[in-house]
Amino acid sequence: MTMATPKSAIAHIISVDAMGGDLGPAAVVAGLSKSAQKNPDIRFILHGPQDQLVPLVAKRKLARRCEIRHAEGVVKMDDKPSHIMRHGKGTSMWSTVEAVRNGEAAVAVSCGNTGALMALSMVRLRKVEGVNRPAIACLWPSRNAGGFNVMLDVGADVRADEQDLLLYALMGASYARNGLDLKRPRIGLLNVGTEEHKGSAVMKVAHELIAKAADAAEFEFVGFVEGSDIPSNRVDVIVTDGFTGNIALKTGEGTAGFIRDSLKDAFKATPLSRIAALLAMTSLRRLTQRIDPRRVNGGVFLGLNGTVVKSHGSADALGVTSAVKLAYQLAQSSFADKLAARVASATSLAQGVGEQTETADSESAQK
Amino acid sequence: MTMATPKSAIAHIISVDAMGGDLGPAAVVAGLSKSAQKNPDIRFILHGPQDQLVPLVAKRKLARRCEIRHAEGVVKMDDKPSHIMRHGKGTSMWSTVEAVRNGEAAVAVSCGNTGALMALSMVRLRKVEGVNRPAIACLWPSRNAGGFNVMLDVGADVRADEQDLLLYALMGASYARNGLDLKRPRIGLLNVGTEEHKGSAVMKVAHELIAKAADAAEFEFVGFVEGSDIPSNRVDVIVTDGFTGNIALKTGEGTAGFIRDSLKDAFKATPLSRIAALLAMTSLRRLTQRIDPRRVNGGVFLGLNGTVVKSHGSADALGVTSAVKLAYQLAQSSFADKLAARVASATSLAQGVGEQTETADSESAQK
Repeated sequence: MTMATPKSAIAHIISVDAMGGDLGPAAVVAGLSKSAQKNPDIRFILHGPQDQLVPLVAKRKLARRCEIRHAEGVVKMDDKPSHIMRHGKGTSMWSTVEAVRNGEAAVAVSCGNTGALMALSMVRLRKVEGVNRPAIACLWPSRNAGGFNVMLDVGADVRADEQDLLLYALMGASYARNGLDLKRPRIGLLNVGTEEHKGSAVMKVAHELIAKAADAAEFEFVGFVEGSDIPSNRVDVIVTDGFTGNIALKTGEGTAGFIRDSLKDAFKATPLSRIAALLAMTSLRRLTQRIDPRRVNGGVFLGLNGTVVKSHGSADALGVTSAVKLAYQLAQSSFADKLAARVASATSLAQGVGEQTETADSESAQK
Repeated sequence: MTMATPKSAIAHIISVDAMGGDLGPAAVVAGLSKSAQKNPDIRFILHGPQDQLVPLVAKRKLARRCEIRHAEGVVKMDDKPSHIMRHGKGTSMWSTVEAVRNGEAAVAVSCGNTGALMALSMVRLRKVEGVNRPAIACLWPSRNAGGFNVMLDVGADVRADEQDLLLYALMGASYARNGLDLKRPRIGLLNVGTEEHKGSAVMKVAHELIAKAADAAEFEFVGFVEGSDIPSNRVDVIVTDGFTGNIALKTGEGTAGFIRDSLKDAFKATPLSRIAALLAMTSLRRLTQRIDPRRVNGGVFLGLNGTVVKSHGSADALGVTSAVKLAYQLAQSSFADKLAARVASATSLAQGVGEQTETADSESAQK
């Protein structure tokens, strides 16, 4: 983390949308306060209505570390992405993305409407050259050493062809390297079986393309993986189209919620089990934390000229601070530049230029 | 349950494949023994190598209730479906399906290779007229009054167009009525959001078709549902294509397994939590049973001239008896005939004949 390049000056600045979350700006500012305590160098640009934000920031004593940028409008959860894309100027979300576009902040964070945030980010930041469909990557609690797998796309687009899936593999590998500190991530392609003849024609071609790219892009390709492998230690990055990924993500959340509720009921069932629940409280709290969506809060938009972290709409202070933590790690590792270099090298590889080795080395060396 | 029609004579006979499960024929025969104890009228035709089956059946004192039909060959888990379709004659799986085709048994049960079982069933039983793609329906633990939702297709085919999804809705409604005793099942279409503008063009057209069919087919259409709704009480039958359904199913299983393991670890963490685990044992066992895949063991193939229940490959005696229980319930309700009538009425409705009301009434009346 040297200060030599001009870019590293903004590697400490996170652009944050104060509005659009279910719990309002107070929860967001409370989250920033937690992040500020843990990271002495972090700074924020906070976007939203000045009259609401000034007292909140003053209350948390953040005034010296947080620049407030006034924006009157708020993107609502039911606003259509296409509408915001055309008429979103003046909203806090637009302003948040704009700070990254202008090079004033390294990463943008918002708890607002996902579709609108993706649409705005596409229009203002533009896609990295060589990327047809950007993707949203999420973290998934797993049996891995680090405790998390990455899955993408979980909902940026409902379609993906074989080329898109190849790019998801490349971008996912880059994200795992920079966001999860995995030198040589294991990539799996989500399918209905692990045998090579399974699935549609697109799956088979994608399997081939990703296998071919593995060496140059410094990841290990474990081939097809199944839904049951998502929380496993077989794989670090799970590649799939946005329709399937979104449904898998929400199915996992729904199943975890169902079991959590059933567990609560089980502990209420008898007087003995109530006592048991008291005795096991610490251990159970540790388990709940492990599968708590607030602690893995942050979908990352990949494939744009600039990094955007989407926090859960219902994020409280803890959720916001988790999203900011991820944003800060990505900011400090110059992730956006590395990802663009990685995609460019893959594109030139496909065109037979073959300069990928140097780029790959430079990504590792910068770490 | 009248004995008046000739068909009801075979409504007590289940055709069972003894081979192909991970635990071998002993587990299957042990499962049949449990089922026989619970249902005094049930009878079996059991398929597999005679020399292995005779002693197992004798040991469980099932000889008077179980006809053994000799079949030398066994379909293995890694056999390709296309190979079995052409060369599967003489296997226990083929023989099991054949007994349903010949009208000797009402429902077939197998723990073997799913792809091969579906391929064989397609070739020997043939699709119901009006059905393009048959589907596999599974039960999913949920917050419903009955404790389970139905999801289909979970892997018969990796594709489904809007017409297929409409037929899945009709077949799923019929299954919920006959397998889960729900008079007016609530049907949902799995998508990446609940708003009507979400998802692909196929989703939008399928939404329209299913909404139009709801009244005549006596189900309630709740519109789009998300992955998080699968274990909810919002819906009884979740309709999706086989690729998405298979991945959702295995993601749910994987998530449940991950939480179960984490819970075990949590209880081992401290001496206090070990004591707690002992105290809460009964309550925890109840929870584990609720989410135990063996107790919801049985995917049902829908859309064929005859009913086939696919049990989990790893099913033990409890798993086999759960699959047989489901098979027996479907056998007793003449499910296959009702489903065919339902599809036929929908087809004639689409052609403007409009005789669906009578057929719908007859399905309810027969219950």
